[in-house]
Amino acid sequence: MKVSAFATQGPNQELEAFSYEMGPIGPEQVDVKIINCGICHSDLSMMNNDWGMTTYPIVPGHEIIGEVVATGTAVKNVKVGDQVGVGWFSSSCMSCHECMDGSHHLCSSAEFTIGGRHGGFADYVRSHWSWAIPLPEGINLAKAGPLLCGGITVFNPIILAGVKATDKVGVIGIGGLGHMALKFLNKWGCEVVAFSSNPSKKESILAMGATKVVDSTNPEELEKIAGTLNFILNTTNVTLDWNAYLVALAPKGKFHNVGAVLEPLAIPAFTLLMGEKSVTGSPLGSPALTKTMLEFCVRHDIYPITEEFPMEKVNEAIEHLKSGKARFRIVLKN
Amino acid sequence: MKVSAFATQGPNQELEAFSYEMGPIGPEQVDVKIINCGICHSDLSMMNNDWGMTTYPIVPGHEIIGEVVATGTAVKNVKVGDQVGVGWFSSSCMSCHECMDGSHHLCSSAEFTIGGRHGGFADYVRSHWSWAIPLPEGINLAKAGPLLCGGITVFNPIILAGVKATDKVGVIGIGGLGHMALKFLNKWGCEVVAFSSNPSKKESILAMGATKVVDSTNPEELEKIAGTLNFILNTTNVTLDWNAYLVALAPKGKFHNVGAVLEPLAIPAFTLLMGEKSVTGSPLGSPALTKTMLEFCVRHDIYPITEEFPMEKVNEAIEHLKSGKARFRIVLKN
Repeated sequence: MKVSAFATQGPNQELEAFSYEMGPIGPEQVDVKIINCGICHSDLSMMNNDWGMTTYPIVPGHEIIGEVVATGTAVKNVKVGDQVGVGWFSSSCMSCHECMDGSHHLCSSAEFTIGGRHGGFADYVRSHWSWAIPLPEGINLAKAGPLLCGGITVFNPIILAGVKATDKVGVIGIGGLGHMALKFLNKWGCEVVAFSSNPSKKESILAMGATKVVDSTNPEELEKIAGTLNFILNTTNVTLDWNAYLVALAPKGKFHNVGAVLEPLAIPAFTLLMGEKSVTGSPLGSPALTKTMLEFCVRHDIYPITEEFPMEKVNEAIEHLKSGKARFRIVLKN
Repeated sequence: MKVSAFATQGPNQELEAFSYEMGPIGPEQVDVKIINCGICHSDLSMMNNDWGMTTYPIVPGHEIIGEVVATGTAVKNVKVGDQVGVGWFSSSCMSCHECMDGSHHLCSSAEFTIGGRHGGFADYVRSHWSWAIPLPEGINLAKAGPLLCGGITVFNPIILAGVKATDKVGVIGIGGLGHMALKFLNKWGCEVVAFSSNPSKKESILAMGATKVVDSTNPEELEKIAGTLNFILNTTNVTLDWNAYLVALAPKGKFHNVGAVLEPLAIPAFTLLMGEKSVTGSPLGSPALTKTMLEFCVRHDIYPITEEFPMEKVNEAIEHLKSGKARFRIVLKN
């Protein structure tokens, strides 16, 4: 099958129309006709080879909503006509310890949807059946795409940390990821502190589910909540005053990172050990948990706040994302 | 009561005979006649004011085995004649959230046995009743002292991390703390890797309970075990190649610090998040857990390897510790 897509040929270039031949379908693969695809900051990072692992030409896009149009001979779980979501991963080996243990997202040979293969800024995409997540009935297709990457990225940490309704939690960075985290944690029953460098957004942040907004640029505001938070989720990828946030944690509190900050985190051993605190991290989540999350989203009507662009206006959409004005996730519609 | 002790009057000075008046006993306090007292590296740190929190004169010693000789009017749990152990802490407020939650060692007003008060290089010491831990029947009094500080310091992390018999674990630094960790983890049923910078000690390290000894100075040996360990306990207080140890962890693995290394830990976010790994820390443990540990020690005959000095030869003992030749914990006997 011939796929019509948008690709870049090198760092810092515009996307251009690009077509490629998908080749014969593998026994465990499914082909998905793309309804829409979100744009994630990591699409930009991959387009510009920020992480040194880009193969050009690259067709970005890994927050894909679509319909299964073809299945290999050994496909399980999904069938032609099913609506599915495909996120950051589109295959894993299915047989290593992590895959067998339900952590396919930690499989060392898991394939990135836009790593050495082509993603969702296109009319079709291919995936291993396990990563074509069946969408629950009643889901809002127009807004669900970003849940497959940004959504699961912030949902998984809440599960890993065992966050409870009685916990006081914090979210750093109220952007594409952070605003979804606020929505999840609000429905979790938690007291939710939003750390924002732009407190003029206060009203809208409270509307997303935060209980309180703390100005992250003001050390005094941080000091005021010292020792109170059971869990902090950092969605930014910049170097922060790590100690200030560790101090904001209650004893036994957990500081969780999902941002791929390049500079190592400087963690003071004393703060960590005197309060029995943790610094943790995670990438996305497993197919099983992604399915659980989607069901949770339907049940609680949790969706990202999105802006829609037609797929052909992908360059315009990318510029809008780069400008920092996107509120909060952009979805490209076929 | 007049106490005969050994104290230093300032950093880098020898200990000298010193006596002080204990004053009237408080309602919740117990007085303990000291049978013996271990020497811990943190006694040296406190004697030299390495952490900037020493009050002089200081009577060091916080690995105390003794017998209760007096009790205040409101003492619970112990009575005159009971054999008890007193460790790093000797009181906590008993009413804050952490105390009420069973984590008295995280109480922000917990008192250090040798912080602003006098410790166990003496004939008597005073403690809140909650921190005078009743010793289980059959315990080896001559060797139990170091369990109260070094022992609980490495036992608590095993509990916190939820280490299972099926886990592969590592211990960095096979000294006073590390050798006790090996003994615990061996009885836990784990496969235990000892990281030592002195592999000439291999045979003795295996005898302590390690399954395997890895030369921590050889990067190739570390690379060989990449991705295999579920839990690593770092007992050293020097800056390590943190990334190399994080890489040695299996997915979802935990790296736990008990060493008060002064320089911040430089933790690469990518390694942390791609493997869903954690960096954690803890100080000592609660009275309840200390009691549980002591029972475990009696049941499995776990004791530190000790050398005994008479209390009067405390300066000789300190020199021996400083020389790095102590194998592995020194106990001062009254």
